[in-house]
Amino acid sequence: MHAEVISIGDEVISGQILDTNVQWLSQQLEELGIRVLYHSGVGDELEPLVETFSRAIARAEVVVATGGLGPTADDLTREALANAVGRRLVRDAEALRQIQQLFARRKREMPARNELQAMFPEGSRIVRNPNGTAPGIDLDAPRPDGATSRVIALPGVPAEMKEMWHDSVEELLRRMRPGGRLIRHTRVKCFGAGESQIEARLPDGFLRQTDPVVGINASQTTIIFRIAAAGADEAECRRKTQPVVAAIRQRLGDLVFGEGDDELEDVVVRLLQSRKQTIAVAEWGTAGTVAERLGSVAGGETAFCGGVVVASPGALRAALGLEAGEATAADRAATEATAVACRKRFGTDYALAVSRFPPLAAADETPRPFYLAAAGPAGVTVKELPYAGHPAMLRVWCCKQALNLVRLTLLAAARLGGPS
Amino acid sequence: MHAEVISIGDEVISGQILDTNVQWLSQQLEELGIRVLYHSGVGDELEPLVETFSRAIARAEVVVATGGLGPTADDLTREALANAVGRRLVRDAEALRQIQQLFARRKREMPARNELQAMFPEGSRIVRNPNGTAPGIDLDAPRPDGATSRVIALPGVPAEMKEMWHDSVEELLRRMRPGGRLIRHTRVKCFGAGESQIEARLPDGFLRQTDPVVGINASQTTIIFRIAAAGADEAECRRKTQPVVAAIRQRLGDLVFGEGDDELEDVVVRLLQSRKQTIAVAEWGTAGTVAERLGSVAGGETAFCGGVVVASPGALRAALGLEAGEATAADRAATEATAVACRKRFGTDYALAVSRFPPLAAADETPRPFYLAAAGPAGVTVKELPYAGHPAMLRVWCCKQALNLVRLTLLAAARLGGPS
Repeated sequence: MHAEVISIGDEVISGQILDTNVQWLSQQLEELGIRVLYHSGVGDELEPLVETFSRAIARAEVVVATGGLGPTADDLTREALANAVGRRLVRDAEALRQIQQLFARRKREMPARNELQAMFPEGSRIVRNPNGTAPGIDLDAPRPDGATSRVIALPGVPAEMKEMWHDSVEELLRRMRPGGRLIRHTRVKCFGAGESQIEARLPDGFLRQTDPVVGINASQTTIIFRIAAAGADEAECRRKTQPVVAAIRQRLGDLVFGEGDDELEDVVVRLLQSRKQTIAVAEWGTAGTVAERLGSVAGGETAFCGGVVVASPGALRAALGLEAGEATAADRAATEATAVACRKRFGTDYALAVSRFPPLAAADETPRPFYLAAAGPAGVTVKELPYAGHPAMLRVWCCKQALNLVRLTLLAAARLGGPS
Repeated sequence: MHAEVISIGDEVISGQILDTNVQWLSQQLEELGIRVLYHSGVGDELEPLVETFSRAIARAEVVVATGGLGPTADDLTREALANAVGRRLVRDAEALRQIQQLFARRKREMPARNELQAMFPEGSRIVRNPNGTAPGIDLDAPRPDGATSRVIALPGVPAEMKEMWHDSVEELLRRMRPGGRLIRHTRVKCFGAGESQIEARLPDGFLRQTDPVVGINASQTTIIFRIAAAGADEAECRRKTQPVVAAIRQRLGDLVFGEGDDELEDVVVRLLQSRKQTIAVAEWGTAGTVAERLGSVAGGETAFCGGVVVASPGALRAALGLEAGEATAADRAATEATAVACRKRFGTDYALAVSRFPPLAAADETPRPFYLAAAGPAGVTVKELPYAGHPAMLRVWCCKQALNLVRLTLLAAARLGGPS
């Protein structure tokens, strides 16, 4: 069963607001095992709206629309849907009563134009809106091939739309779902290599398998595998997913850092907590980004103690007692000294230092390096990396490289089996 | 001139990631005076992709697509576009050379499959991608009515897409714009009051004016006025915009902190630089977010020296020499002491301290307070605020409150005319 999600409104189409409804509805449909094939966005204009509904009905068994159900002149969803299916708009007495009651409950007089919200394409069922004036529409629309499409039109206010979804729409669609099949999504996350390098390590055809479906994409320099398994129940989905996850882990080793919502900072904090160890950070180039991430891990304060943000040589001297001379140089020795001084100053098991960033190289220049250092009970590991990449992504990448160095240092310590 | 924006990728269509590209591209097109009529979203599947391109070409003079230009097997934009316009894919030697150079600069071997990214529908022009491997496509596609549509296909990585837009696409489309009527958008930004409080201070009908159009919305607790003026040239747009900006500033006073791309941290750094003064920060609750913002202002290192991120009482002792006893309490006196100690330790003109955050109150509880302190040559200002609001927005709001306290302290010092 395939679905199309339609988002309606000038403020969405012109980019004035960020549309989060389409994403949310798509997630809900996919969780029901209904595959979303198309998204459509269209403004408050009748002709494009009719065209959009007609096409959606022709190509999807389920059409969910959001927006355009308000009482004002530019709310055209009712009219457009009626046109698209060739029906009249008729007033629904029960819907009108509900709208009137809502105004009475709020002790406000109902403006005449709100009566419009009780008009429905003939043959529609009404989707109750417990907390708003606009009821939704539930309509079986005839398709050119003789079958029907289920069209659900909901308001654009996210809170009302979501409440109506959980209140009734979800159950309506669940009952439509043939065979009761579920779809479950699993994410496996990697860091430390590019998308094509990672793909090159996989068996041929790995990303073309269809049961489960396996996709790969990059999000802020993290490479994410997305595995979508369909099954009669959770257990079947898990049975299909598990060997795929195992294959990815086996091929990619330590490039894989986690699953689901895991971020590198979560993994670092978990590793430290499992050994009752602590960390502090001293950041120049990343300017607090690493601290912010470690500090955002829920319950992470037993592992992350704090740190220093250095934006001047004076700050290194003031906060860590390091002389500016040795510190201003963004070099290997200075970064190593910073990590060691930070570990000592904060009295932690580990300390991470990020050097100052060099100027970004022009496209035809060789990038200059920056340094990361992880100081721990077993000594200091320093990593040199080229300061290159997209400017908007570079700080995120450096920050993730820093967290990844800590992760790999902790894994190596565990493998040595020493006191780490 | 009308446009359609197409977003491509399974991770978008299934709702696994939130698509911000469509909004961004729509804003850019509207800024150029090109009206967006349709959004389309489609997964990594050839037939729906071809259908989507064909329809977009038939109904819009400008088609901008994002996504599906990567090197992997599920990146089908090149092939789909070639199918939609009935052309072959041919290899472009110059594009291949650029991709090879990029890998060489990064000192990585180019996987064979990246050669795919140098394939283009015959007759395409190449859109340079200064910092990524996927060049974009610029193609004149024949329409059923004999005219042509301008199709631009860009990568889905937001940073690359945006850079390519500003690097060349914007100018290509600007040259297409018929009639030469411009639309210019101006943003005026406020912080420190809610949207309805701000609206209540404006003259009646202020937000219903149509030439220029004035809108207001909230973005991450910043309230933004958006003024859209149409005119024959820049001067006419400016003439229409200027009195609206003046009226907002006159009514709202210090609630207005900037215009355009200004963020609070830019304004703080500018104010400090204009007086040759410096600042350091000590953050507990915001965990490095304030430092990260101040450290991100280009050229800001003459004003922002660095700071301390505190995630444990030990960190306050280690980094600022404050005893844990006085510091663990998230109270007025401890926050004031932290600001004073930070100013002294870093030797700066100003220091900002953010207290530890209290537990978030339940919906029926009174929120607990947190504290901000700004220490400067004229003494310390402490601000108590309720720790309440939407959890996803709370840290951003606290961070902006902290920066705003510094801004207002600097403005007050300037007004006193003293040595500040």
